[in-house]
Amino acid sequence: MAEMELWFTEQQTPDLGFTCKITKTIYTAKTKYQDLAILETKQFGKMLVLDGAVQTTIVDEFCYHELIAHVPLFTHPNPKKVAVIGGGDGGVIREILKHEEVEKAYLIEIDQEVIEASKKYLPEISCALDDKRAEVIITDGIKFVSENKNMFDVIIVDSTDPVGPAVGLFESNFYQAVYECLKEDGLFVAQTESPFYDQDLIRNVFHSIKSIFPITRLYLGFIPTYPSGLWSFTMGSKKYDPLEIDTSKIKRIDTRYYNPELHKALFALPTFVQKIIE
Amino acid sequence: MAEMELWFTEQQTPDLGFTCKITKTIYTAKTKYQDLAILETKQFGKMLVLDGAVQTTIVDEFCYHELIAHVPLFTHPNPKKVAVIGGGDGGVIREILKHEEVEKAYLIEIDQEVIEASKKYLPEISCALDDKRAEVIITDGIKFVSENKNMFDVIIVDSTDPVGPAVGLFESNFYQAVYECLKEDGLFVAQTESPFYDQDLIRNVFHSIKSIFPITRLYLGFIPTYPSGLWSFTMGSKKYDPLEIDTSKIKRIDTRYYNPELHKALFALPTFVQKIIE
Repeated sequence: MAEMELWFTEQQTPDLGFTCKITKTIYTAKTKYQDLAILETKQFGKMLVLDGAVQTTIVDEFCYHELIAHVPLFTHPNPKKVAVIGGGDGGVIREILKHEEVEKAYLIEIDQEVIEASKKYLPEISCALDDKRAEVIITDGIKFVSENKNMFDVIIVDSTDPVGPAVGLFESNFYQAVYECLKEDGLFVAQTESPFYDQDLIRNVFHSIKSIFPITRLYLGFIPTYPSGLWSFTMGSKKYDPLEIDTSKIKRIDTRYYNPELHKALFALPTFVQKIIE
Repeated sequence: MAEMELWFTEQQTPDLGFTCKITKTIYTAKTKYQDLAILETKQFGKMLVLDGAVQTTIVDEFCYHELIAHVPLFTHPNPKKVAVIGGGDGGVIREILKHEEVEKAYLIEIDQEVIEASKKYLPEISCALDDKRAEVIITDGIKFVSENKNMFDVIIVDSTDPVGPAVGLFESNFYQAVYECLKEDGLFVAQTESPFYDQDLIRNVFHSIKSIFPITRLYLGFIPTYPSGLWSFTMGSKKYDPLEIDTSKIKRIDTRYYNPELHKALFALPTFVQKIIE
């Protein structure tokens, strides 16, 4: 007798699917903001899915979380206060707290149920949320950033795709509020989707940020469970340029993706990506 | 009335599928060596599939073909005679012939039907096969390389996955024959699969090549239609080190992925990839 096979498919575009074998549906919920599922996959271990889109998996989460955290934190010479907007799974907080000079890392997440499900079912990722240097604030990231001025050294925007609750996190008004929420030498990074499938978004975001911040840089990383596998991050900085830092002075921390020799190479862009932001 | 939807799925691993919408099956054949299909996809335009695995598509072929051709050709200071083992679609030959100093580029392909189908249905990719500097030889690449000594400046191994006809192209005996087939300052590159799914293969190939060539380097690129999107290439070189070249002297050619500023950055590896080849 054949066993039943369960497959999860993310429709990455209307014409393209990413499909993987499921051994178990661990948890599903309709939260106030989105559909949440935690699946056990054969290929990637446990997987967090929001509104049908893969957010993170046990096997490849290190790629995304290290890329979005360590590039800004090693660009800033002394990041003491750091905020993450979104990122309720806690993976970015875990990476931030590998930096000893960080005194406080705030998680600003709109959807408490993402945090609770991650704490319960994804402890490998959420493990640092109970650290005494971490503080979780359940609120709208846009509201939080708008109400706090001159407060953070580094802000990391770990949003979902620009649909549903995250739309406002890709808009110019938000980047202006981020600018004001940062200290005078602060910098921020946002995840900005795939250079293969989201070229208009990357272009718009880059130029919005460039019109506000004196230094704007795009960098790339590889995340196999995200559409195309190639992912972009956009940095806006008031003072420090990620391409000007002395990478020989970067402290070695325990990582699986990021390393000092990779830091500047991440900003070397294929020609078709350069053209997006020209 | 709903329209019928046709989807092509590549089983990238037993537990992972890549699936895209098809508007038309342009051509299918069972050749002497493999199953061949040319499909019209919505997302990637025309697609060449061999034994169920995506080989190349109109939309993203530039990534692979530029990565495998321009890195070795710009590492060698004067590549005049170049051979491609496999690569019957002709995309690598097209890129090679962008280098004016190349006098002759040989395509050594075992399966004539791949060449014929590519010429007929994929002229965007195969267009250079009729160039007077190109010569197509239908034979077993292993046999060809073994029978020719001290002949090429650069050899590019553009193989299918290490199953079926391509198995021998991932073996140590073949790399020894490639060494002998190269001139005394020659170098070669092989496509060596995904660092995410093929770690044992990458490790074995790297160490095989390292035991034969004085200089061995791994580099990475993004190819959205290949498993994980991250792809590796391994270079064995008798004399020239891709990390020692003066990239400011690289000639500008018409490319969409490769550029001189990217050349050395391609060799900066994420930590988990470094560990594969340690």
